Amino acid sequence: MSAGIQTDVIDFPADSAFSAERADEEPGMRELYERLSTRWDAEDSLLGDMCRHAQVPMGKLFRPVLLLESALAVGGDIAHVLPAAVGTESGHVASLVHDDIIDNDLMRRGRPAVHAKFGADNAIVAGDAMLFDLFRCLAECRQAGAQDSRIVSALEVVAKAGLELCRGQSLEYEITQGSSRDVDRYILMIKLKTGALFRGACQAGALLGGGGRQEIEALGTYGDELGIAFQMCDDLFAYTGDDDTAIGKSLLSDIRNKRMTLPVLLAYQQADRDGERLLDAAFDPELDPAEALAMVGTVIRRTGAVEASRAMALRHASAAERALDALVPTPSRHRMAHHARMAVSRVS
Amino acid sequence: MSAGIQTDVIDFPADSAFSAERADEEPGMRELYERLSTRWDAEDSLLGDMCRHAQVPMGKLFRPVLLLESALAVGGDIAHVLPAAVGTESGHVASLVHDDIIDNDLMRRGRPAVHAKFGADNAIVAGDAMLFDLFRCLAECRQAGAQDSRIVSALEVVAKAGLELCRGQSLEYEITQGSSRDVDRYILMIKLKTGALFRGACQAGALLGGGGRQEIEALGTYGDELGIAFQMCDDLFAYTGDDDTAIGKSLLSDIRNKRMTLPVLLAYQQADRDGERLLDAAFDPELDPAEALAMVGTVIRRTGAVEASRAMALRHASAAERALDALVPTPSRHRMAHHARMAVSRVS
Repeated sequence: MSAGIQTDVIDFPADSAFSAERADEEPGMRELYERLSTRWDAEDSLLGDMCRHAQVPMGKLFRPVLLLESALAVGGDIAHVLPAAVGTESGHVASLVHDDIIDNDLMRRGRPAVHAKFGADNAIVAGDAMLFDLFRCLAECRQAGAQDSRIVSALEVVAKAGLELCRGQSLEYEITQGSSRDVDRYILMIKLKTGALFRGACQAGALLGGGGRQEIEALGTYGDELGIAFQMCDDLFAYTGDDDTAIGKSLLSDIRNKRMTLPVLLAYQQADRDGERLLDAAFDPELDPAEALAMVGTVIRRTGAVEASRAMALRHASAAERALDALVPTPSRHRMAHHARMAVSRVS
Repeated sequence: MSAGIQTDVIDFPADSAFSAERADEEPGMRELYERLSTRWDAEDSLLGDMCRHAQVPMGKLFRPVLLLESALAVGGDIAHVLPAAVGTESGHVASLVHDDIIDNDLMRRGRPAVHAKFGADNAIVAGDAMLFDLFRCLAECRQAGAQDSRIVSALEVVAKAGLELCRGQSLEYEITQGSSRDVDRYILMIKLKTGALFRGACQAGALLGGGGRQEIEALGTYGDELGIAFQMCDDLFAYTGDDDTAIGKSLLSDIRNKRMTLPVLLAYQQADRDGERLLDAAFDPELDPAEALAMVGTVIRRTGAVEASRAMALRHASAAERALDALVPTPSRHRMAHHARMAVSRVS
């Protein structure tokens, strides 16, 4: 997918998921863009500079869109939930700002990461501020007309999602340190790291929109499965993408950080002794990342791990789509099903 | 004040503010201790290890106590607000974990800081988790019996306080970089960095406890002024404390990080040309921190900056105490007045 727009001009990124045309079709998108692009305007300080830099140009806005669509899918009022949608993006961007420090990724969305531009110390504070902003946004739903009882329910799921995100990040470190090749543990990790915020966005939207227990459960499953599928595709992209800036950050990042992502784990399962030796060698910390990427890529292709990863991603995307069957048919449900298909389309 | 207990055994720190005797006198203290000491027990992971390490041994628990007392002072039910009190400590500890990375302070509460033990990358995640926990705790107030409308009001003030905390940290960096000697800007910075969370704790307690507009306003002022007084004393302590571990972290930290705290700013105002030259020389980044501390200390004492700082801290503590006049007399109000006096007693 596209890295989003490359300038500060407010416009829609020209990718398949969020074209200008779709902005007109998808409820709330234009409003969302406007709010996100002006969110930190009043903050005339270094902190404001950092938060603006982190937030604009925007990414795919997947999480806020899921929140809006989930609210609409259960018959909610989009005006009541718009601040919360803005908040999920703040929370997501906060995690990117901190992640980029941790992974030492210097580029994000086609320009320097916050820590690369402002220093790691300041970037820690900027991430914290955006994390607090997620909850400030939730509180703003009151002013927007949402019922207090629904806001508290959304608070519960969002705080829980944030904690699971941290669990996922911490588990990722444990997996990397232990050089674990356990596929189930990897799936748990990405479910926490990526699925939790997708789930949180969907469930917060459904709760704020007044959804019933069954709808909230279904949208939670949708978020989990979509998040897993999405992350699997992201991981796969490091080995199938041919353009280093295609997803706005270095494809070498996973290799440089010695991340055994799904394609690597599946390659280990299928590799012969030579292949295994090549993989082991590739994960030697002394090796040049570009060389390591090429070595891993060779084994991944040879063992069919690309196809196997893709198949797993597609299965999770299908599970996401199936979960939507519990909802009444609406344009929102229809679009969410489309999102699930689009999320894996880049590797299909 | 004491650095808190030095072992994992749950006990009360033997300092003047939170002795075992006072634990019996102060409502909720024992319960608070138990909850905080077991908060991360279910988290059987690296993340859990880090959060436990950060949270136990405990510090002064100033913020949770202020939240509990504020709730009681407006006639609230302590059971309804206990989770929120736990949350303010999570939020405070989160900021310490991230602060220690930023300041490269290796010790905290008499043992290694989280980043010193687990690495900066992991510590970023641990801080984030504790920050999310603050909001998870707020949501738990529902189960504890608090009204949803009050929880949303508390959410508003707590999210705002968190953002102000970040503004303060970022402003501190700007002040340090610019070598600003502006006392008003310094006071704004500590009001944001320290006062905001004190204010947030007091106001969240008052809101959850069902306080009226005037009470909430008064407790906000109390929190601000107490926070400012408290931070002024902390800053002064670097130059008056004679034990490097007395406050559980290195007294050299401010000097090492080239922080122009209040005593330094006031010394600059009063210094003759020789004194000014000595201060300038002390803030040379090449200088050994211990030597720099001694040089600054000399000028601070010679110019009467210690007494001037102390006088300012006392004025803010008095303002905090006066703000309480708007509340009806209760044992909580009485204890909060006592806390204001105790906060500055260590430098009196």
